[in-house]
Amino acid sequence: MDIRFEKSLKLKEKIKDENKLGFGTYFTDYMFLMDYDEKNGWNDPRIVPYGNIEIQPSAMGLHYGQTIFEGLKAYKNDGKVYLFRADENFKRMNESNDRLCIPPVDEEFMMEALKKLIDIERDWVPDSKEASLYIRPFIIATEPKLGVHPSDSYLLMIILSPSGPYYKDGLAPMKIYVEDKYVRAVKGGIGTAKAGGNYAASLKSQIEAEENGYFQVLWIDGVDRKYVEEVGSMNIFFVTDDGIITPELNGSILSGITRKSIIELLKAEGQKVVEKKIAIDEIMDLHKKGKLLEVFGTGTAAVVSPVGELFYNGEKVVINNGEIGKVSQHLYDELTDIQWARKKGPEGWQIEV
Amino acid sequence: MDIRFEKSLKLKEKIKDENKLGFGTYFTDYMFLMDYDEKNGWNDPRIVPYGNIEIQPSAMGLHYGQTIFEGLKAYKNDGKVYLFRADENFKRMNESNDRLCIPPVDEEFMMEALKKLIDIERDWVPDSKEASLYIRPFIIATEPKLGVHPSDSYLLMIILSPSGPYYKDGLAPMKIYVEDKYVRAVKGGIGTAKAGGNYAASLKSQIEAEENGYFQVLWIDGVDRKYVEEVGSMNIFFVTDDGIITPELNGSILSGITRKSIIELLKAEGQKVVEKKIAIDEIMDLHKKGKLLEVFGTGTAAVVSPVGELFYNGEKVVINNGEIGKVSQHLYDELTDIQWARKKGPEGWQIEV
Ligand SMILES: Cc1ncc(COP(=O)(O)O)c(C=O)c1O
Ligand SMILES: Cc1ncc(COP(=O)(O)O)c(C=O)c1O
Repeated sequence: MDIRFEKSLKLKEKIKDENKLGFGTYFTDYMFLMDYDEKNGWNDPRIVPYGNIEIQPSAMGLHYGQTIFEGLKAYKNDGKVYLFRADENFKRMNESNDRLCIPPVDEEFMMEALKKLIDIERDWVPDSKEASLYIRPFIIATEPKLGVHPSDSYLLMIILSPSGPYYKDGLAPMKIYVEDKYVRAVKGGIGTAKAGGNYAASLKSQIEAEENGYFQVLWIDGVDRKYVEEVGSMNIFFVTDDGIITPELNGSILSGITRKSIIELLKAEGQKVVEKKIAIDEIMDLHKKGKLLEVFGTGTAAVVSPVGELFYNGEKVVINNGEIGKVSQHLYDELTDIQWARKKGPEGWQIEV
Repeated sequence: MDIRFEKSLKLKEKIKDENKLGFGTYFTDYMFLMDYDEKNGWNDPRIVPYGNIEIQPSAMGLHYGQTIFEGLKAYKNDGKVYLFRADENFKRMNESNDRLCIPPVDEEFMMEALKKLIDIERDWVPDSKEASLYIRPFIIATEPKLGVHPSDSYLLMIILSPSGPYYKDGLAPMKIYVEDKYVRAVKGGIGTAKAGGNYAASLKSQIEAEENGYFQVLWIDGVDRKYVEEVGSMNIFFVTDDGIITPELNGSILSGITRKSIIELLKAEGQKVVEKKIAIDEIMDLHKKGKLLEVFGTGTAAVVSPVGELFYNGEKVVINNGEIGKVSQHLYDELTDIQWARKKGPEGWQIEV
């Protein structure tokens, strides 16, 4: 398919101070769009000036949550622009699509489209330290009908947001609230998909955690209410005296691409990493015995994010004296070096645009 | 607040054959809109010509499922138009809002707004047997920002869709598939809210049930995987030799207004109705002992909908010989008589516009 390009008559002023960018607030000059209908499949791929979209009030995506999204970044180093494992994002997009009954996209075509868009917008990729271009592909159901049924038409978009460093004052440990009241997702549900409904379910918990001075929540499973799942927008790892452990992909958590990359990096270094069911009590116990050395989250936004404190069931657990641990720091450095292509990464991870 | 009115320059042609209306496909000439922002609260209520809305691609509602909706109907009888317990819908809207971190609406003002809209559109309320005007209030988060956080701005809309009879060929028993693979919602999640994510989670199950010749699914709870919850868009009741039972409001099912009304009607008639935890095995057992007399679903769309067959775990259970039972028929007649105001209902149920 040819990608149609519509030139913008007026380009925006770029934000000079990249430290002030924040996250997901500013958008570039162009966006990618593609339609789906039953007769033509995915069609009319186009790069057009960034702007509002028109939608019918009865569009199914506005009512029945038939929406999915992805999140990844473009990194600039020495004038060159890189994507990090973007093929994994389009693979996961199709997994989300499958769960939400949205027709699959052609993953190779999506890569081509993304590269073309990034190429046009390469000046928008920030080049100050730890700033990057956040990329948000997403799909919404557009059939104008109120029956609860998969839509017969969709809109796919990619929008781009230059974003500042996640940690304005450098890597810093976060305080995490272990959520024992609300549940994000459960096996048999849509927890493995990057679908709006999972995030909607998280808002109230997030707010309450913030009110108590915590940065994000750590979800516990909805069935036994005792196994650790993931953090708001990160997967979670525990460094113990006997290797590193992380919750297995159990059918309710998101399969993070950072998670996968960290596991692969650790294994390549010959370290012991085990994916398994982890009870929150096991973590509390490890801590009591002095065997919980570090805790960190992994995700596209924060890369590797050390946890300095866990609050669970009335108890505050300070980890590694609230300081960044060696393993966390090492993995953060390693992964960001690869993402910014300061160092050669494993085959296929760095995609130059 | 004054409701602004913008007149349409051209009214639509109405659909003559009301049997052909279907559900949620056609929309009337006008819609109600209202905005929310942190400074002004809910503001600028307006009734304007029905048409597309403009939305920013980064609007939170398109990404993080921060959307809720309601569903109710207006009924015409002898030229007069009635709403059925609409106050309950706005009460439930606020319950959904609370769970999804959406600011509450003024329930009385919403009633006033709805009445004004229906008054303008009264000609659109179908008057053929069992056809009605379906009313869809909904709210979407509009803040143009990609952080996962409650939005600081919202759009509330009410759109109206003239809809045909649910049963084109008269009340008929439906075949229901008991879902033992997928889960709709779980305690601690958003199952009690009328939020998009719950319906997104149901699509795949619904499709698979249809492929097997079933009309809708009966959800089983996500924790123990054995307690009956509700049907796709209905609550469920079982008529036994020892009274009528229905799942209790357990924190994961929707509190249906039809459910509530049926319980109240039955109690007023002196019948035994018990809200409790009901294991699917209990139902299978009652059936084997010949003690399961009828099963029916309740919801705004279908009113009271008899179940003729349940499929569970490889077993087909035919209920009441696949025929409409006495209790189901009686409740259907009773409730529709009240909704269409052919009969006087309990205080406050019938709201004339
Ligand atoms: C719920 C959730 N878990 C985990 C992650 C981490 O995934 P990734 O490493 O692919 O960014 C994310 C995404 O950002 C997420 O939203
Ligand atoms: C999941 C679900 N359960 C039950 C119902 C029935 O609720 P009500 O009787 O208020 O229409 C609905 C709504 O239509 C629903 O969507």
